[in-house]
Amino acid sequence: MDSALCWKLLCVAAVSVSLEGLFRYWWKRRKSVKEVLFFPVSLSCTEGVLNPGVPCLCPLPHTDSDLHRLMRRLMEARRSLELCIFTFSSPPLARAVLLLHSRGVRVRVITDSDYMATVGSQIGALRKAGVEVRHNQSSGLMHHKFVLIDKTLVITGSMNWTMQAIQTNKENLLITDDKVLVSAYVKEFEELWNEYDPATYDFFPETDK
Amino acid sequence: MDSALCWKLLCVAAVSVSLEGLFRYWWKRRKSVKEVLFFPVSLSCTEGVLNPGVPCLCPLPHTDSDLHRLMRRLMEARRSLELCIFTFSSPPLARAVLLLHSRGVRVRVITDSDYMATVGSQIGALRKAGVEVRHNQSSGLMHHKFVLIDKTLVITGSMNWTMQAIQTNKENLLITDDKVLVSAYVKEFEELWNEYDPATYDFFPETDK
Repeated sequence: MDSALCWKLLCVAAVSVSLEGLFRYWWKRRKSVKEVLFFPVSLSCTEGVLNPGVPCLCPLPHTDSDLHRLMRRLMEARRSLELCIFTFSSPPLARAVLLLHSRGVRVRVITDSDYMATVGSQIGALRKAGVEVRHNQSSGLMHHKFVLIDKTLVITGSMNWTMQAIQTNKENLLITDDKVLVSAYVKEFEELWNEYDPATYDFFPETDK
Repeated sequence: MDSALCWKLLCVAAVSVSLEGLFRYWWKRRKSVKEVLFFPVSLSCTEGVLNPGVPCLCPLPHTDSDLHRLMRRLMEARRSLELCIFTFSSPPLARAVLLLHSRGVRVRVITDSDYMATVGSQIGALRKAGVEVRHNQSSGLMHHKFVLIDKTLVITGSMNWTMQAIQTNKENLLITDDKVLVSAYVKEFEELWNEYDPATYDFFPETDK
């Protein structure tokens, strides 16, 4: 093979590598999800997220907020939704979860035993609808507040799913689809799900012995 | 210029672009911080993080944990440390913050007014040492639990800085140096810092009017 042909082949190969690298970089940047939501937000109607295209005539303001952004992320779930939430009493978020459950998305919930039976908790409504719910049994709180959507996106932060948190407190939720971060939360969820399996309940805790 | 020379120059340029792309990709991967810490952790000695190389003879176990990883991240601060923490009563974390303050790192703390005076709170000790502290005045909780290190790294999640959270609760902290995410938290911190400026305190809140 002569020298000119060698150079040409080398050139074509190098250009291909460059283009592939640039494409990968662009694709990764275009697709990656990284967002932070901040609360409190003002009270407003969220029906538009649950029933897009159906006009709502309720008297609440119809402005967009970080609660809408959170709910839109949840509604993206197609296969699975894992909730690991300390306190869950927000009606609009419960409606979103129940809607996903009714669409066939596998919903699993881990929550805290002390708070799941408090006034306003949505855990009873979820259980009644057939959603799988497990809870801690130990003395420490199950204080996580994270969500996994299709095991490809995690939402985590300070915010419990309560109306006070959404409308009154200073709170944050970080959303990312970074594989390293998401996989850490998937692992934690599965470990807790197994740890809180009702089949292994200890009905005679140490304090009663 | 003859054709062969053109090909050679094109080839050199393409190879350079490829190498630069690969180097950028490697550098970004090597440098980027993404980590999740999970709690609870067992009680163990953290002196080694605060005084590296100085052997500690205390009777506590000297094993590594996610608390050590958190403290090592904090100790990386060289210019600034911003804490936006709902409840802060952990003595080892307070020691780390005070050590950074004594080294000249600018430490600023935002916390919740209802919880900063509770038994065991470290906010008084920080103030006594000269650390700048501000707090909310509204009825809602300042419920954030995030930290900024040198404004280039954020630590956020469910965990308050209490011994119960560290040693008993199920908690998570996500650590990232992603610029988009970090800048969102920097903006939130600065907005709250201004909002909670004592110069704008309202000493006659609406409920008393």
